[in-house]
Amino acid sequence: MEHTVINVDQRMQQCIDECLDCYQVCFSEAMSHCLPTGGKHVEARHLGLMLNCAELCRTAAEFMMSNSALHATVCGACAEVCEACARSCEQVGGMDTCVQQCRRCARSCREMAGSGASAHGFSGSQAQNSDAPMKAPM
Amino acid sequence: MEHTVINVDQRMQQCIDECLDCYQVCFSEAMSHCLPTGGKHVEARHLGLMLNCAELCRTAAEFMMSNSALHATVCGACAEVCEACARSCEQVGGMDTCVQQCRRCARSCREMAGSGASAHGFSGSQAQNSDAPMKAPM
Amino acid sequence: MEHTVINVDQRMQQCIDECLDCYQVCFSEAMSHCLPTGGKHVEARHLGLMLNCAELCRTAAEFMMSNSALHATVCGACAEVCEACARSCEQVGGMDTCVQQCRRCARSCREMAGSGASAHGFSGSQAQNSDAPMKAPM
Amino acid sequence: MEHTVINVDQRMQQCIDECLDCYQVCFSEAMSHCLPTGGKHVEARHLGLMLNCAELCRTAAEFMMSNSALHATVCGACAEVCEACARSCEQVGGMDTCVQQCRRCARSCREMAGSGASAHGFSGSQAQNSDAPMKAPM
Repeated sequence: MEHTVINVDQRMQQCIDECLDCYQVCFSEAMSHCLPTGGKHVEARHLGLMLNCAELCRTAAEFMMSNSALHATVCGACAEVCEACARSCEQVGGMDTCVQQCRRCARSCREMAGSGASAHGFSGSQAQNSDAPMKAPM
Repeated sequence: MEHTVINVDQRMQQCIDECLDCYQVCFSEAMSHCLPTGGKHVEARHLGLMLNCAELCRTAAEFMMSNSALHATVCGACAEVCEACARSCEQVGGMDTCVQQCRRCARSCREMAGSGASAHGFSGSQAQNSDAPMKAPM
Repeated sequence: MEHTVINVDQRMQQCIDECLDCYQVCFSEAMSHCLPTGGKHVEARHLGLMLNCAELCRTAAEFMMSNSALHATVCGACAEVCEACARSCEQVGGMDTCVQQCRRCARSCREMAGSGASAHGFSGSQAQNSDAPMKAPM
Repeated sequence: MEHTVINVDQRMQQCIDECLDCYQVCFSEAMSHCLPTGGKHVEARHLGLMLNCAELCRTAAEFMMSNSALHATVCGACAEVCEACARSCEQVGGMDTCVQQCRRCARSCREMAGSGASAHGFSGSQAQNSDAPMKAPM
């Protein structure tokens, strides 16, 4: 990543894509995988978290699509909720697609939170040195 | 406020109500007041902020309606965005209903952010004794 | 009702209120009643319908808050979904609040669908002669 | 198209993709193209229609992601609103991406409305003989 220059607009578009993918994966898995499977998959805390996560991801995407100066605030909250959703999906088991998408979205949102508000403890260089490869936009 | 005992469930229900009212006021004013009025009212930053604020208020309400343990995180972000929306409405002028509802929602969301996550630096008693605008938690 | 003249704007505001109430009741009952109760309450068809109904009610409200000429189309679809949700809640049992709110919303949306698009088979007079009292706006 | 067999699940997934693309294009163009451009682009009827269209597309996608038996009803309404949005974008001018995506989404939603509810006047064969090529899923 050191030699790759990614400008803010490209990174924001990537984050929009990750958020909208995460909205779709979380909502779709909640409805077409968790509900029919039952058991742990429909425990209130897990299913509620998946639906809440979907909605916050979509809201974060709307802030970025609106070029809002406040996107960092919402992306920071979104990163936290996506991490919690990934952990819940790991505990339930058999939800690898959702775990992975939530982690990708959390990473991308943390970058946005950092670039937009360095007071949150993220620096641009830390974000760019993220230890995992960045996903190409969909 | 000192002699009034409000339990957490009542305060959360109040915050849900404030958030859903703020969603309705912001969306409705954006569409039926700002768009027909034009001028400053349809500047991208102002109209975008009103629509983004509406959506985040609704999302915060959904976290609380889902009894999510993560509601404090989203309410903290919501309080910050509502404050920014109130200021933008003040600058545009002639939007008192929206200014007042955004301020009420911001205050209620700050209380939720504080009561749900004392690590953020708010205690329940501070939140309950709030008689002046508190600083956004995030 | 015979002697009461309700103009279109009042009736539209009532329908907005019914739709937003129905959004809140359906979403809230799905998350805080159905999910914790389990059994029939979390069957995919029932819980999915409640969440879908919530979202369509909110969308119909947004068309009306935007003074859209297409509100009748969306209200027509919303009435059909609300009726289906009311029936599903009756079959599951113990969900009277949701049954009643879905029925009120369906009735109000049918009126809007009729007044906006008589080709749908609803006439204004039929709508006004609805057999149940109209609810005051919240 | 005559010799191509596309099963319902593939066609529904295509419609979900078209609806979510249309949500993103309409919302994003409204916020980052129409609002900054001003003039005709921010007339209440046009901008309101774009935002309403975005929201109904997303709601239709949620019905399909939930495998709802009522998706045909919502897709029928969505097709009508997408057509109106395409026409509004044509009249405003300079919005070809939005015109094209709304038309693709309208066509896909009409197919879904027809396959799910033949009483709406669409037959499966008419839908499959649509005069334009189908877009591959994203």
